[in-house]
Amino acid sequence: MKILKVNELVSIKRSIEAGTSEQLAVVKGIITEIRKRGDEALREYTEKFDRVQLPSFSVTESEIEASYAEVDQEYIEIVREAAENIKSFHEKQLRPSWMTTEENGTILGQKITALDSVGVYVPGGTAAYPSSVLMNVIPAKVAGVKRIVMVSPPDESGKLPAAVLVAAKEAGVKEIFKVGGAQAVAALAYGTESIAPVDKITGPGNIFVALAKREVFGDVDIDMIAGPSEIAVLADDSARPDEVAADLLSQAEHDPRACSVLVTPSLALAEAVSSEVEKQLAVLPRRDIASRAIADYGAIYVTADLDEAVETVNQLAPEHLEVITENAMELLGKIRHAGAIFIGRYSSEPVGDYFAGPNHVLPTNGTARFSSPLNVDDFQKKSSVIIYSEKALKENGAKIAAFARMEGLEAHARAVETRLKNK
Amino acid sequence: MKILKVNELVSIKRSIEAGTSEQLAVVKGIITEIRKRGDEALREYTEKFDRVQLPSFSVTESEIEASYAEVDQEYIEIVREAAENIKSFHEKQLRPSWMTTEENGTILGQKITALDSVGVYVPGGTAAYPSSVLMNVIPAKVAGVKRIVMVSPPDESGKLPAAVLVAAKEAGVKEIFKVGGAQAVAALAYGTESIAPVDKITGPGNIFVALAKREVFGDVDIDMIAGPSEIAVLADDSARPDEVAADLLSQAEHDPRACSVLVTPSLALAEAVSSEVEKQLAVLPRRDIASRAIADYGAIYVTADLDEAVETVNQLAPEHLEVITENAMELLGKIRHAGAIFIGRYSSEPVGDYFAGPNHVLPTNGTARFSSPLNVDDFQKKSSVIIYSEKALKENGAKIAAFARMEGLEAHARAVETRLKNK
Repeated sequence: MKILKVNELVSIKRSIEAGTSEQLAVVKGIITEIRKRGDEALREYTEKFDRVQLPSFSVTESEIEASYAEVDQEYIEIVREAAENIKSFHEKQLRPSWMTTEENGTILGQKITALDSVGVYVPGGTAAYPSSVLMNVIPAKVAGVKRIVMVSPPDESGKLPAAVLVAAKEAGVKEIFKVGGAQAVAALAYGTESIAPVDKITGPGNIFVALAKREVFGDVDIDMIAGPSEIAVLADDSARPDEVAADLLSQAEHDPRACSVLVTPSLALAEAVSSEVEKQLAVLPRRDIASRAIADYGAIYVTADLDEAVETVNQLAPEHLEVITENAMELLGKIRHAGAIFIGRYSSEPVGDYFAGPNHVLPTNGTARFSSPLNVDDFQKKSSVIIYSEKALKENGAKIAAFARMEGLEAHARAVETRLKNK
Repeated sequence: MKILKVNELVSIKRSIEAGTSEQLAVVKGIITEIRKRGDEALREYTEKFDRVQLPSFSVTESEIEASYAEVDQEYIEIVREAAENIKSFHEKQLRPSWMTTEENGTILGQKITALDSVGVYVPGGTAAYPSSVLMNVIPAKVAGVKRIVMVSPPDESGKLPAAVLVAAKEAGVKEIFKVGGAQAVAALAYGTESIAPVDKITGPGNIFVALAKREVFGDVDIDMIAGPSEIAVLADDSARPDEVAADLLSQAEHDPRACSVLVTPSLALAEAVSSEVEKQLAVLPRRDIASRAIADYGAIYVTADLDEAVETVNQLAPEHLEVITENAMELLGKIRHAGAIFIGRYSSEPVGDYFAGPNHVLPTNGTARFSSPLNVDDFQKKSSVIIYSEKALKENGAKIAAFARMEGLEAHARAVETRLKNK
């Protein structure tokens, strides 16, 4: 891996795949057809893109039952335990509606309400990611969303992966449809005969899914458009080079554009990790992907001291940050920007991907400066509640009317004064 | 006003102004120039669009002081009281970072951190909206944002309105720049010699500002792109027609595309409000605007009963909702979708625009189904914290590795197993 000084620091921002104008035209066409012709168009696109004719898009109860027989009992148990941990962590995020009362009779507050319905997109293709099902569905469930719909493209035999169906069932999904691509996003946003529309669409997907999510945004809410994965490890001489290298590679294997960075004041650690990365890379199944990521977006930054290392990490605002230093807990207060912070050598990043409980859907591409992991708040919204008393309006009505007139809004002033005059 | 039955219900969604391709090209060009040439380009655009040559973009301390002499003492006092109310309401939204500890030594949590910096756009032009300064700045301030920058286009003498400067000072803004339009948004997003970049841009603006915010989104965060204002009044025979009509008009005077709707089971109220609206409209200074809004987007829906009225309101998901019925408080639990809910006849909508404390930046265009009023959360972000213990990793490491292998991610499994093997 490249060993660089901090003054050579580059941003971890990579251009987000924006798609070509041809791809965008395809997506817009698909959305128009789904809005116009509903299921009929959905059926045509599924035949065209997924190469399968489906009698019904809906996954049946018996298909879900059958999927349980196709996976190991051990897998089911791990999914259940992971789901339990994720549920427990997200339940702690729940906030009550609240109010504040004043002596003059006024009550102000925030009413917190779950979204009515959410659609979760689960990508198809070669690799099935049941962990992504858990991470998207469970926060919505905990938030109180009544209707959670999952969509995923079927294979050529018209099936979804058993591991995904088991994860969906364990997470509590009741409606699953075998549709994918931009057509699935359009169906979720606008509804068809088979699929009632939802209020928000979350979950990862290919460029067509991402473009479709951008297109429907505003009519429904969407989660973030995620970029390739990132890890920054902040470590000193107390860290073991083989462990740091293994963690850097765990992100690198995701994507040739994944970004793995070590920031350390220790040149000795830098050199040891660099050679460990090469060694472990040589025997990694996904070494083609990982070695491209390490070559193109990997770097080790050597800093003057730990403070400079922390500041470097804040500048990067990485999706995942591991802190493996002697005084790791003491550094927590200085870390301002990171999606998830893993403290200590036992908090290896995959612990958070699958099992510990916090969400693995995290802000990428430096957006941890202003964005958060997927969480319960993403599936609830607030309404302000204003209960103004007669006394309060009498005390303050003239001031409110004066402020409105100052802004040239006479009807606002009169709305208040009508009450004052009426009694 | 039109009196309709619920089966004639139309969505309150109006197409959001998307701008023309020419406008978008202008905005993209401006952003490119600001990124390339910084202050030089900013100066040129300010000369071109605002018709003023400025020695410096920065508003000086003495300009702010002078602005206090230009406004009434009464105005200053109202602004101070409103600011205090807004601060107090938003402080109640603050949440602490939290953690949960497990017996095996694991600690999980959420670290809540304020954004480093925020830019607030304040529109120029004929009407000055100091209330908008308070509503955008104070939540950021309460959230703990250290650097809050305000930008607003100067008039041809190179000045900003005194009322706006006073509101900015009272809200606690320290950096104010006399720039506007797409060039101001670009300067906030990417920085120039005079203006350091920010992490998030909020505040309303014209179509060029809105397009520029969309363009820079992703590099920085933005608030919503707001549509025209809306009010729905849910009322029964206990409501006074003149008060309901006055409130409908208070939104209608904002914009010819504003939407004012009454939903009531009472035909008598419907008819009385309809004629009150005409009466009050005739003597309203902004009657040209308000009458177009009432004609094009105003409606009174008569429902079979109160339950149907509530469900109608939920379908509309209005920005502002007034509930003026005998049992108003009992209905609160049934209202799922509204930006702000005003209960009772003394809670006239302008109370919330200026003074009560809750934010007046609210979700429009039906997005209250999934969006919230501007609030403290918008200026903070969460980082997950994962401190996994040695014991926890020994208990769960094999399961985590198995899950990773199931997803075909061998390097993830090895990252965990390296720890298990090492000790």
